[in-house]
Amino acid sequence: MPELRRDPVVGYWTIIASERSRRPLEVRAPRAQETVPCPFCEGREADTTPEVYALRRPGTAPDGPGWDVRAFVAKAPILSAAREMERFGRGLYDLMEGVGRHEVLVESPRHRHGLDELETSEVERVVRGWLDRTNDLSRDPRFKYVLLFKNHGVISGAPGDVVRHSRSQIMAMPITPKRVKEELAAARAYFERRDRCVFCDILRQETREGVRVVTENDGFVAFCPFASRSPFEIWVLPKRHASDFGSLEAREIPLFAAILRECLSKLRVLLSDPPYNTILHTAPYRHTKKETHWKTIDEDYHWYFQISPRLTTAAGFEWGTGIHINPTPPEDAATLLRESPAKED
Amino acid sequence: MPELRRDPVVGYWTIIASERSRRPLEVRAPRAQETVPCPFCEGREADTTPEVYALRRPGTAPDGPGWDVRAFVAKAPILSAAREMERFGRGLYDLMEGVGRHEVLVESPRHRHGLDELETSEVERVVRGWLDRTNDLSRDPRFKYVLLFKNHGVISGAPGDVVRHSRSQIMAMPITPKRVKEELAAARAYFERRDRCVFCDILRQETREGVRVVTENDGFVAFCPFASRSPFEIWVLPKRHASDFGSLEAREIPLFAAILRECLSKLRVLLSDPPYNTILHTAPYRHTKKETHWKTIDEDYHWYFQISPRLTTAAGFEWGTGIHINPTPPEDAATLLRESPAKED
Repeated sequence: MPELRRDPVVGYWTIIASERSRRPLEVRAPRAQETVPCPFCEGREADTTPEVYALRRPGTAPDGPGWDVRAFVAKAPILSAAREMERFGRGLYDLMEGVGRHEVLVESPRHRHGLDELETSEVERVVRGWLDRTNDLSRDPRFKYVLLFKNHGVISGAPGDVVRHSRSQIMAMPITPKRVKEELAAARAYFERRDRCVFCDILRQETREGVRVVTENDGFVAFCPFASRSPFEIWVLPKRHASDFGSLEAREIPLFAAILRECLSKLRVLLSDPPYNTILHTAPYRHTKKETHWKTIDEDYHWYFQISPRLTTAAGFEWGTGIHINPTPPEDAATLLRESPAKED
Repeated sequence: MPELRRDPVVGYWTIIASERSRRPLEVRAPRAQETVPCPFCEGREADTTPEVYALRRPGTAPDGPGWDVRAFVAKAPILSAAREMERFGRGLYDLMEGVGRHEVLVESPRHRHGLDELETSEVERVVRGWLDRTNDLSRDPRFKYVLLFKNHGVISGAPGDVVRHSRSQIMAMPITPKRVKEELAAARAYFERRDRCVFCDILRQETREGVRVVTENDGFVAFCPFASRSPFEIWVLPKRHASDFGSLEAREIPLFAAILRECLSKLRVLLSDPPYNTILHTAPYRHTKKETHWKTIDEDYHWYFQISPRLTTAAGFEWGTGIHINPTPPEDAATLLRESPAKED
């Protein structure tokens, strides 16, 4: 089982996941070519762990063909479920078992299509899948936070994943990560000072100035954030203040799917299918009552969806300072993205 | 001039350095092959900005051949010096001019030799260069922190730098970066609770357990940290408690040079010359009296040198949580590094 280890100085956690490379030196070896046949394609359901969720066509059975979206536990999970979580110390050092749940959500039966190349109705089903999975996992009292993310393409020229089939990943965790806590604490501090949500204020300034806005619709605004860490970074924010992605309403699903597809399609057209990560920023689960900020989080936090193309590589300066260098001003990125067409639905 | 922009939520800074790519889309284009002739080679001194420092053979003149180590301001600096630093706001957003000083220190006149391939006497001169430059820059009251770092090789398969010639970089900054402040605050909190330096405690536990130690000598211990974020990460810690690298004593220079060269050489032999970053962790400059922790920093902080091979790529999970996934337990890495030979001097 993977092990979480805590740095004794600053307190960051690292996952030591030795199961993911069989021998210590394997990490250096070039990875294999794309596996054929792809385990995520329709008809290859036996190649994955049993499905935990699917949106299926009527009359089809679990773990067989006939699905539009399908989720299962990862074969080599970064974190995996155990009965109870053990925490212990070793001298100065703290560690705990890598308890959690790592699911893969395949976004389409079609092997060669990126999320932005699907029809909007298909992207809506992906969003419904994200919503259903994150809400379902919220009922497990062991989990404090769920991270929904996506790695697309070959990041920064590294060999990357061997499977190309478009999917997202869902990681339910027994801790609220330090990065998330920082964001929550900062949003709370802002609210305490001004009685306004910082993200609502950002939305107001962005729509008033317009220079960093990529696109918007009735429910959402997409813009390149003022302090973008990556060139062409995009944040998609709901106009309706809500701390929790899980509270997305049925009428908002098509609006969110449409703006997401549009942004990703613009990136593909403008930058020739760049590698990117997406990260959903959302509130921790409701049952974590001992978090002191819990009472106010509904008013001071605001969920959003981050899309970060990976065109630059963090090196010594970024690692040493935490300050990222972005060669593309977000105003230039937004202008280019506004002008860039999205593929027609 | 590059611009520092502050994220309005969490408060991280980003450097928008549009001068570093002439057109916004250039960031995506593959970079050129290695420049010939190399501007960092002996005899090409006119290709760099004027030298600000050199260790020279007797009778040679600045900006000509005859040097062992040579430093100058970077041609495309990430931060650059201006008379005064301007800070201003734009609605919600804070920004400041990218004031600072970005120097390049060429480690040897020889083009093809990595730092670990130099003789120990040559590495000693590099260490002397680091020491002289960081101490010299400490006299400029505009600078609060200096980051000494090094990017070696092609990081994670990206095209990387076009020039291969071995050098380090020195960045003097008008702010103490958030990452550094966190480390200082954590070290102080530990000291307040126990009246001991956390790094001295780490040294005691590591030398007692031995399982993560790579090598040691009379002045320094090199080990793979307990919560290593990268496979084969190494920290070199001075045995003598000192918060400031600038206080390195003349007798310690050969010991530091020897252990550094040994660690880098072991990495090259074991992992076939992997890409790596090095980062010097040291106390902020003395004149930053308004930092409240300043009084205690000499007792609670401890400088160290971090070497991080870049064999894995951070993706959505790492960006979303701040938790890194390391497939190689540091105990395994240390065993392999202990057994791996270093090139003879």
